[in-house]
Amino acid sequence: MLLVARTPDLSRLTRKPDRGSSSRALLDALLDDELVGTLATVLDGEPWVVPLLFARDGDRILLHGSTGAGALRHIAEGAAMAFSVTAIDGIVVAESTFDSSANYRSAVVRGRARNLDADERAEALDLLSDRVIPGRTSEVRPSTPKEWAATLAMELPITGSNWTYKERIGGPSDPEGPVDVWCGVVPMRRVAGDPEPAPWSVGDVPPSVQALRDRFA
Amino acid sequence: MLLVARTPDLSRLTRKPDRGSSSRALLDALLDDELVGTLATVLDGEPWVVPLLFARDGDRILLHGSTGAGALRHIAEGAAMAFSVTAIDGIVVAESTFDSSANYRSAVVRGRARNLDADERAEALDLLSDRVIPGRTSEVRPSTPKEWAATLAMELPITGSNWTYKERIGGPSDPEGPVDVWCGVVPMRRVAGDPEPAPWSVGDVPPSVQALRDRFA
Repeated sequence: MLLVARTPDLSRLTRKPDRGSSSRALLDALLDDELVGTLATVLDGEPWVVPLLFARDGDRILLHGSTGAGALRHIAEGAAMAFSVTAIDGIVVAESTFDSSANYRSAVVRGRARNLDADERAEALDLLSDRVIPGRTSEVRPSTPKEWAATLAMELPITGSNWTYKERIGGPSDPEGPVDVWCGVVPMRRVAGDPEPAPWSVGDVPPSVQALRDRFA
Repeated sequence: MLLVARTPDLSRLTRKPDRGSSSRALLDALLDDELVGTLATVLDGEPWVVPLLFARDGDRILLHGSTGAGALRHIAEGAAMAFSVTAIDGIVVAESTFDSSANYRSAVVRGRARNLDADERAEALDLLSDRVIPGRTSEVRPSTPKEWAATLAMELPITGSNWTYKERIGGPSDPEGPVDVWCGVVPMRRVAGDPEPAPWSVGDVPPSVQALRDRFA
C-alpha cells in the first residue's frame, strides 16, 4: 500500500519553503491544528525523542518543560533539534494495498532553541496555556514566580528555510485498470468529548473549555 | 500548567518495563491504538525525524518505506533509532494553568531495526496493510514482486528492556486551597468519518473499511 510505497515521509505531494507563502500558510495551519509534536535531538551520540505540547506564536514555536529535565536542558543550551508535527486526515483505500495510503500533513522544523529569560518565560507560558485552553489564563489565578522558576521555556524560530512541509490529500489515484472493489477515503479527525467536571469543580463549563471543545468539535 | 511543569516527557505517572507484564500490556494497547509513530535517528551527527505508519506484531514493530529513501536505508542498515508513539486522551483543566495538564499515553522503543528479506517482507507488508485496513488484503489483488521490490520493510524488536511507557490519566489533582472555577477533563479521541467513495468505486463499503470505521467509532 502507499503506506508502503510512499513512506518513509508518507509523502506524495511535497511543498517546500521556496514555494513561498502558500506553503508557509499550510505550515502554520498544521502547527495551529495540532497540540503535540515530537522533539528529536542527539544526546551522547544517540537519538533522543520525546513528545511535547507546543504552541506557534508568529514565527516561533514555543516549547516548555521542567528545569529538572536534563535532556530538555540540553535543548535549552542550544543542541541541534528537529521538531516533528503530524496530522492524520484520512486513510486512502485504493484498489491495491500497494496504492493505498494515508492522507496526512507533516512538518519538521529544524534548528536550535533559545532559552527564554524570566520575563519572556512568563509571557510564553501563558501563551502556551491559552493555546491549549483558550483564555484560561483570564479565568484562574496567575502563575507564581516559584512556578515560573520551576519551568524552562524555549523558542524555536521558524525561518524561511529551516522547515519542510509535506502532505497527501484527496482520494486514491486513478487506477491503471478496471476496478471491482470499493475504493475511497475514510476521513479521520481528533474530537473532544463532553467535559467531565472534577468533584470539587465550581460553576458551569467556562468559555475557555467551551473554546477547546469547539476547536475539536 | 502541568503541560509546563511535567514536560518534557509529559509524565506524571511512569511505568517502566521492570514493573512487569501489566506495563507491557499497556505498551501493546498504545501501539495497537495508534496508526503513526515518529522515528528518530542520527544522520551525519544531526537529529533526523520522520512520521511513519507502523504495526505491532507480537514482540516486534513493523516499519516500511521506499527503497529510494536514503534515511530509511540508514535505519535498515542498523543505525540506532528511537520510535515514539503518543496518544492524547484528554486535556486536564485544573484550578491553575500550572497544574493543568494533558492525559496521554506515550512510549519510546529504542534499538536497531532488522531489514527483512523478500519472503519476510511480503508477509510484513500484508500485516501492515491489514493492521491499518483490517482484512483489505483479502479483498484486493495480491501485491506484485515488483511492488515488494520497491519497498523496504524492517522490524524493531520489543524486548524486556528497550522501551519506556508513560501515561497521565484521570482528573486534575486535588487543589491545595478552595476552588472557585470549573475544573475537570476534556476527553479527546481520534474518530473516523463517513467513507467517501472514489468516482470509480464499485460496490458497498467492504468489511475492511467498516472495521477501520468501527476501530475509530
